[in-house]
Amino acid sequence: MALSLNGDTRLCFCVGDPIAQVKSPAGLTRVFNERGENAVCVPAQVRAVDLDEFMRGAKRMLNADGMVITVPHKFSAFGHCDAVTNRARFLGAVNVMRRERDGGWRGDMTDGVALVAALRAAGFEPRGRKALVVGAGGAGSAVAFALVEEGLARLGLCDADLGRRDDLAARLAGRTSATVHAHAADPDGFDLVVNATPVGMAPGDPIPLAADRLVRGTIVADLITLPPVTPLLEAARSRECGIVTGADMFAPQAGILADFLLAARV
Amino acid sequence: MALSLNGDTRLCFCVGDPIAQVKSPAGLTRVFNERGENAVCVPAQVRAVDLDEFMRGAKRMLNADGMVITVPHKFSAFGHCDAVTNRARFLGAVNVMRRERDGGWRGDMTDGVALVAALRAAGFEPRGRKALVVGAGGAGSAVAFALVEEGLARLGLCDADLGRRDDLAARLAGRTSATVHAHAADPDGFDLVVNATPVGMAPGDPIPLAADRLVRGTIVADLITLPPVTPLLEAARSRECGIVTGADMFAPQAGILADFLLAARV
Repeated sequence: MALSLNGDTRLCFCVGDPIAQVKSPAGLTRVFNERGENAVCVPAQVRAVDLDEFMRGAKRMLNADGMVITVPHKFSAFGHCDAVTNRARFLGAVNVMRRERDGGWRGDMTDGVALVAALRAAGFEPRGRKALVVGAGGAGSAVAFALVEEGLARLGLCDADLGRRDDLAARLAGRTSATVHAHAADPDGFDLVVNATPVGMAPGDPIPLAADRLVRGTIVADLITLPPVTPLLEAARSRECGIVTGADMFAPQAGILADFLLAARV
Repeated sequence: MALSLNGDTRLCFCVGDPIAQVKSPAGLTRVFNERGENAVCVPAQVRAVDLDEFMRGAKRMLNADGMVITVPHKFSAFGHCDAVTNRARFLGAVNVMRRERDGGWRGDMTDGVALVAALRAAGFEPRGRKALVVGAGGAGSAVAFALVEEGLARLGLCDADLGRRDDLAARLAGRTSATVHAHAADPDGFDLVVNATPVGMAPGDPIPLAADRLVRGTIVADLITLPPVTPLLEAARSRECGIVTGADMFAPQAGILADFLLAARV
């Protein structure tokens, strides 16, 4: 990668633990360059127990004006924001923070937005459609919120933890005109099916929903990035469904993060 | 500059305030690259009042294993080291810190060493020679210590602050076989003359020593980097002295810093 690095370079940290796998240092730095910014995204490996002290120190760096937050810090970083977007507040988590012109830090959670962008890139428009989201944890909540925000007509939620599932359904139902309801892991009747569980990462994992009930033309998305094509996506492909991989979802993420990070400088 | 930036990239901060003028992000990153290291040096603008909090936070980043320290932090950063080199201890200041394999931070002060390297590059060997150092502050002390450490025979020290001058002379005399003494700003009888004061940076500044007493063949060094050739160096040139500029002194600095920073990883 060709880039300038000098005393005027502005910093964005990508904060996580472990850190070797993160893609933002390369992807986001490339986008900064393309947009003419003298800025780099650099990895910061910080243990959960050290996050508070890291945050206090990093905020003292006057030329550091952004942070991308990844596992395991998305929930605890929320508490280090002075302001957050509506979706970050709903989720109680942030995956990105920027320094505002007044010096305060504003957080957002763009994981769900990135899936919506990947769906659109694959030709799927959520407005008025029916989606089943499997997994009501952090990732599933972000995806569900983003889909509802984009005008989904009906959202089915599925999770082995029934309390977590019902809680998310109730919270979403209170703020949308979409029909939100608990549902079995059965894709029948949905235009879109999203796996937001980790099931499919480990060799030998089962498929997290009734794949034999998938019908031709349904869009199946999986947030898992490794393997690139999970057993669910293989099954979907063989049944002539459209597929959206974790990598497809990552592709627009750097641009989305840059949009948020650079907005404060306008 | 072409470089890799990914989740495995290791960080070295260049800590100062102001920061726009620092050369280490470009220079040191280039040296890291040349040596096959996946590492970058990035600027960190930190106010003096914020240094302690910055240090505590930066030390929590497991992939940050070096810091280059510049104005105004060289003295206060000394207190953030768990161990220091002899010259850093003598000077009570560090310009570089590295994380050791045991997790502690070790500091060094290489400003004087860089001048010695620049002198050698210009063909001047300090051993057995006579030098006049003008300025007994931080920079002058570092230069004086490095010259004495390299086997200088005689060191004259000059400073408008006589107490500071005499204190440095006494401390140096106690740890060297060189003759160390206070002296006027008169270059007569010296093989080498070094300006370690800021006099010459501002337009209209006087020349900080009796330039009309410079004789052909004397080496004259000036630590000032802007202007690139100070009035002192212009006068020295016109009297057929050899000159060593601030930029000449900066040239070996990145390699010297990298030697120290990378030694802990061997």
